[in-house]
Amino acid sequence: MGMTMTQKILAQAAGLPEVHAGQLIEANLDLVLGNDITSPVAIGEMDHLKDDRVFDKDKIALVMDHFIPNKDIKSAEHCKCVREFAIRHEISHYYDVGKMGIEHALLPEQGLVTAGDVVIGADSHTCTYGALGAFSTGVGSTDMAAGMASGKAWFKVPSALRFNLTGKLPKYVSGKDVILHIIGMIGVDGARYKSMEFVGDGVANLSMDDRFTICNMAIEAGGKNGIFPVDDKTLAYIGEHSGKPYQVYEADPDAVYDEEYTIDLSLLRPTVSFPHLPSNTKTIDKVGDIRIDQSVIGSCTNGRLSDLRAAAAIMKGRKVADHVRCIVIPATQQIYLDALREGLIETFIESGAVVSTPTCGPCLGGYMGILASKERCISTTNRNFVGRMGAVDSEIYLASPAVAAASALTGKISSPEEVEG
Amino acid sequence: MGMTMTQKILAQAAGLPEVHAGQLIEANLDLVLGNDITSPVAIGEMDHLKDDRVFDKDKIALVMDHFIPNKDIKSAEHCKCVREFAIRHEISHYYDVGKMGIEHALLPEQGLVTAGDVVIGADSHTCTYGALGAFSTGVGSTDMAAGMASGKAWFKVPSALRFNLTGKLPKYVSGKDVILHIIGMIGVDGARYKSMEFVGDGVANLSMDDRFTICNMAIEAGGKNGIFPVDDKTLAYIGEHSGKPYQVYEADPDAVYDEEYTIDLSLLRPTVSFPHLPSNTKTIDKVGDIRIDQSVIGSCTNGRLSDLRAAAAIMKGRKVADHVRCIVIPATQQIYLDALREGLIETFIESGAVVSTPTCGPCLGGYMGILASKERCISTTNRNFVGRMGAVDSEIYLASPAVAAASALTGKISSPEEVEG
Repeated sequence: MGMTMTQKILAQAAGLPEVHAGQLIEANLDLVLGNDITSPVAIGEMDHLKDDRVFDKDKIALVMDHFIPNKDIKSAEHCKCVREFAIRHEISHYYDVGKMGIEHALLPEQGLVTAGDVVIGADSHTCTYGALGAFSTGVGSTDMAAGMASGKAWFKVPSALRFNLTGKLPKYVSGKDVILHIIGMIGVDGARYKSMEFVGDGVANLSMDDRFTICNMAIEAGGKNGIFPVDDKTLAYIGEHSGKPYQVYEADPDAVYDEEYTIDLSLLRPTVSFPHLPSNTKTIDKVGDIRIDQSVIGSCTNGRLSDLRAAAAIMKGRKVADHVRCIVIPATQQIYLDALREGLIETFIESGAVVSTPTCGPCLGGYMGILASKERCISTTNRNFVGRMGAVDSEIYLASPAVAAASALTGKISSPEEVEG
Repeated sequence: MGMTMTQKILAQAAGLPEVHAGQLIEANLDLVLGNDITSPVAIGEMDHLKDDRVFDKDKIALVMDHFIPNKDIKSAEHCKCVREFAIRHEISHYYDVGKMGIEHALLPEQGLVTAGDVVIGADSHTCTYGALGAFSTGVGSTDMAAGMASGKAWFKVPSALRFNLTGKLPKYVSGKDVILHIIGMIGVDGARYKSMEFVGDGVANLSMDDRFTICNMAIEAGGKNGIFPVDDKTLAYIGEHSGKPYQVYEADPDAVYDEEYTIDLSLLRPTVSFPHLPSNTKTIDKVGDIRIDQSVIGSCTNGRLSDLRAAAAIMKGRKVADHVRCIVIPATQQIYLDALREGLIETFIESGAVVSTPTCGPCLGGYMGILASKERCISTTNRNFVGRMGAVDSEIYLASPAVAAASALTGKISSPEEVEG
């Protein structure tokens, strides 16, 4: 029986000729990731070991991003704990204020992940790196600790769903709309513990940023991982960002999938997830009149340069509505700098948005745009669960940067076409 | 007996031919200011009135700046309370995320304060506007409420200290060093409930930004207000920013002062306030070896364009030390935009600093750079009290933007000369 792309990677990492869905394996890890929330817990676990040495100081990434620059004393103490650990163990890839960004944007940008890698991260959106043809998945802090100590992790080999993408996205429709559409279609548990493997001739029409966004939200359908085949765009991205050796895997022609879906990208519309689940989607024409108080453009899902370009293109020369707070958050320092040099940051400030330093901030209710009771936010982030961005009776609507930008201008959830005419 | 400049303004505002130190007067107010921390309390007080109308919707400024973009649910609810009040009373000068800045930088920039004004603000650093030849002082939230309702406030007329400034500041020495030097000289209660009146031929050599910084910290010597005479620089600033009618007051030649100090500006050195009082000053040559963890460049004291220019001039082409988090906070959206267009923001990001959206943030331990236990921060803010920026055993060292920038590069408190050679 043939293997899926994910299974091929896992077999190689486990040193096995083949694996099958449901099998328990121990895989070698190419990278172990933690952030300022999860790493202190993992470090606390490592403190219990007789020998707290790390398996490889060059294969651990510790990224301070959720609550930094520190939002309170507790987050400051957490960062201090990780910083001291990084110094003690001479961790090569420790990222602090000023040298950093949101982990899932930062790691690909810094070339720490490449095709064929097996990556675990103590953050649920670690699945992002599937865009590079890697297997990556979120784990708990104790698994992170074990991974840092041993360089290995246990996995139950996932079965897979196959998404056959065809055609090309229309104007104003992006990777975010693709994944929201899929989650709307299969539900928040539709891919539970399965790989979401994206294939088809439509893949070539998706930018790397689109693919990052799509894989980023695999977990919002319950997926163990999301993964794209490696093509010219992937190799160009890897060539630009990473000097690591890479390995290209392909699913076997006779690989078995639990389900297969075909999605014609050209038929997709801007899509919005209504409160309080990512699967509660409507296309923009079905949204109705939803007045908003805040628009957040950023996050590991949609804080990349192409996201900021899409938002700025719509906001240029226009003003954020009086009653709306629009918060733009470039995902890394490099993206901030690139956006600045392209004039995007100037566009945002001129339009009446504020531009934050890179941070996860409001996405998980950390800071930088928390909602009061009954307030509504349109957001390019990845979760709209009850109270995630603030008060329990506030509401989050998930959308693409283009829709979030258009909505910031009109003050209600709007199509970019409505603004651009 | 002659009147001081402050007394002349207060007499006019009280409709009296003259006033004397210690006299209780009721003065008409030209502006009443509140922020996101203090306004909700004042609004709560107004809710107790039978008639909650405001005296003049054009003479109230409500500035959301301390904890915005909202750092948590509580701050979000506070802003919501003020926002709804501003809408209900059609307050002309309500400043929210994206249209805002730190109150004491924003109000002069937006032309809401001019020479001869009497201004109260529910924030201790309201004394900043003395730089424009206005009487301005901090009050509590209940006084703010009474001011919003009646347009009047009671004052005990202050006596005054006279600071005779001569000469010209050397390179790398700024208004911040002047006021730190003065507070070091007279102590944190040296001007308690007194006016600090700055005069002398040295005034002409101080920029408006220097004067704002100096008046801003009058309260750190216990002053009721700080005030500068109106000269060509003041009038040029007012002409550029404000269409309001203004009135120029001068102290009577026979005005009486409690004390008079002469300060030769040319003899001043970069000055640093050690923990835990602004009066605990040392000149830069006496500082010794103080390793820092963080450098904050911003605030109502030092977040203006000239401050950012001074910092960027030192940081350009250089890198923030590996162990330092450098956080730059332009004080208003306009300053951010101006700094961006001048290339200063690019300089900061390239050097490894992060640039925050305008906020009071870390200055008062709000967010955006809170300190862990035993961490040390050099900061251009105005207070270094125990625990103000985080953990009770953290330390804050107050300094100018030039010194904070130099220190960010070397990783210890340093003179700009040490960096520039």
